[in-house]
Amino acid sequence: MHAIAVHGGAGTLPAVLPAAQETAYIQGLAAALDAGNAILEGGGHSLDAVCTAVQILEDNPLFNAGRGAALTSAGNAELDAAVMVGAQQRAGAVACVRHVRNPVLLARRVMERTRHVLLAGSGAEELAFEEGLDLVPAEYFRTPERQRELLGEHRPAGAAQSEGTVGAVALDAAGHLAAATSTGGMTRKRPGRVGDSPLIGAGTYAKEGVCAISATGHGELFIRVAAAHHISCAVEYRGLTLEQAVQELLREILPRLDGRGGVIAVDAHGNLVTGFTTEGMFSGLADSTGRREVSIRRQP
Amino acid sequence: MHAIAVHGGAGTLPAVLPAAQETAYIQGLAAALDAGNAILEGGGHSLDAVCTAVQILEDNPLFNAGRGAALTSAGNAELDAAVMVGAQQRAGAVACVRHVRNPVLLARRVMERTRHVLLAGSGAEELAFEEGLDLVPAEYFRTPERQRELLGEHRPAGAAQSEGTVGAVALDAAGHLAAATSTGGMTRKRPGRVGDSPLIGAGTYAKEGVCAISATGHGELFIRVAAAHHISCAVEYRGLTLEQAVQELLREILPRLDGRGGVIAVDAHGNLVTGFTTEGMFSGLADSTGRREVSIRRQP
Repeated sequence: MHAIAVHGGAGTLPAVLPAAQETAYIQGLAAALDAGNAILEGGGHSLDAVCTAVQILEDNPLFNAGRGAALTSAGNAELDAAVMVGAQQRAGAVACVRHVRNPVLLARRVMERTRHVLLAGSGAEELAFEEGLDLVPAEYFRTPERQRELLGEHRPAGAAQSEGTVGAVALDAAGHLAAATSTGGMTRKRPGRVGDSPLIGAGTYAKEGVCAISATGHGELFIRVAAAHHISCAVEYRGLTLEQAVQELLREILPRLDGRGGVIAVDAHGNLVTGFTTEGMFSGLADSTGRREVSIRRQP
Repeated sequence: MHAIAVHGGAGTLPAVLPAAQETAYIQGLAAALDAGNAILEGGGHSLDAVCTAVQILEDNPLFNAGRGAALTSAGNAELDAAVMVGAQQRAGAVACVRHVRNPVLLARRVMERTRHVLLAGSGAEELAFEEGLDLVPAEYFRTPERQRELLGEHRPAGAAQSEGTVGAVALDAAGHLAAATSTGGMTRKRPGRVGDSPLIGAGTYAKEGVCAISATGHGELFIRVAAAHHISCAVEYRGLTLEQAVQELLREILPRLDGRGGVIAVDAHGNLVTGFTTEGMFSGLADSTGRREVSIRRQP
């Protein structure tokens, strides 16, 4: 059994999404899903699958991560990312990086090449230099759409907006779980703001034999409820199904703080769950039974 | 009922601690404990009590937070801190600040004055400027002891070393819980490294009606197990006592990853718990029954 889910954020949707735009989002999600799934089908590791899927979404300017990330109040992209593997709960993460083309790959290097879990700012970028990762000028990340958004200009009527983050979770044939999340954060955030994505237990979590989780939404609220760890604990210790645990987080825990968002998750049996309380969510699912779905879903 | 606990870190201890040094540590802990406790006795809020206690420990060069913090591989202090209140699980935190005299006070401003939870680096220091907090040159934090430690010189025989962090947890008479943690992190850490202290759910957590927690130890491991949130969930959902939950974390969860450390915690009934699996721990406890203990404890 292997299984993978990807998401491209959760947020607002116009009543009718133009067909060309919908197609572009679906194609972007499908490219990430299929690349990750191909790794799993080839017997690869879940960590490679989630990193590859997230890297593809980072490179796609439609999504709020890597190129096309939301901009800070100072007009720059400051990027956060995390990876975690279930085995021994190893994790790596970066926050506030401004020149690293693929923050998810740097997060992986933090896990694999340092004794630390989280590096922020220029200290994280030093590691990118040392490891020979692609570094890019700040302009690389800034798309015209994000600059208009920052200036408060109206988007074209009917334009969708991928908010939140991108992420992926996977179970591989060997039973290993992994999660990865990457984001530009919220538009007009203060420089230096760190959201939930790179925080282990908030926006990203994985525990062998239990589940792997990547979240998107109002990051500060996900931090305050330790959202991803809440789900993992509910499954491990309270016997909730993954679906029940995700719904408890989204329908009971977060609403007490007026929080909304979305979650993708996979458990140790390959059960895939997506849930969201925003208007819409961009996600894709695939597993070794041949299931494959890519969708922009709306609240019923 | 009100109750407060403070800690000055957990780490290694020489076989015999010179009396003068022991006295200095005990006095430092007592000053923080008594100042926090006085606020609670006067009917003050637990948030004020924990911030005051931690501020006093930050200003004391014996402890690894604020002045006297451990230094990075580049020779600077980079300071992390967090505060959290149980009510609505509000939280604020800062990471990698280099010029803020009292990081715990800046963490509180993040909670009270911004829409964010965690600010890192120069973005966090911008808020300190805006809020008129005390800013100091990098030299302020560097003590001769920490510079010798960085150079790998031996400490004087019999010298203790306060490792880890400082922190405080409190329950006030109105039933409100709060936690605060502050640290310089580990000696020779990479610049940009963020430990568990400022990460909500890792080194710091509070939830109204449940408990408040401040942890110290090998930060990366506390992040990977979401240590503070693990304790809170065990009490809230699994019916463990606070003592059982702290011991489960320290004796079962962390050892699976070879992790050691210490925890102080208080529950909604005012039960105070300290636990540690390092050689020693510096802590103090006081409550409205008249209990007051300040100690440097060793493993039995």
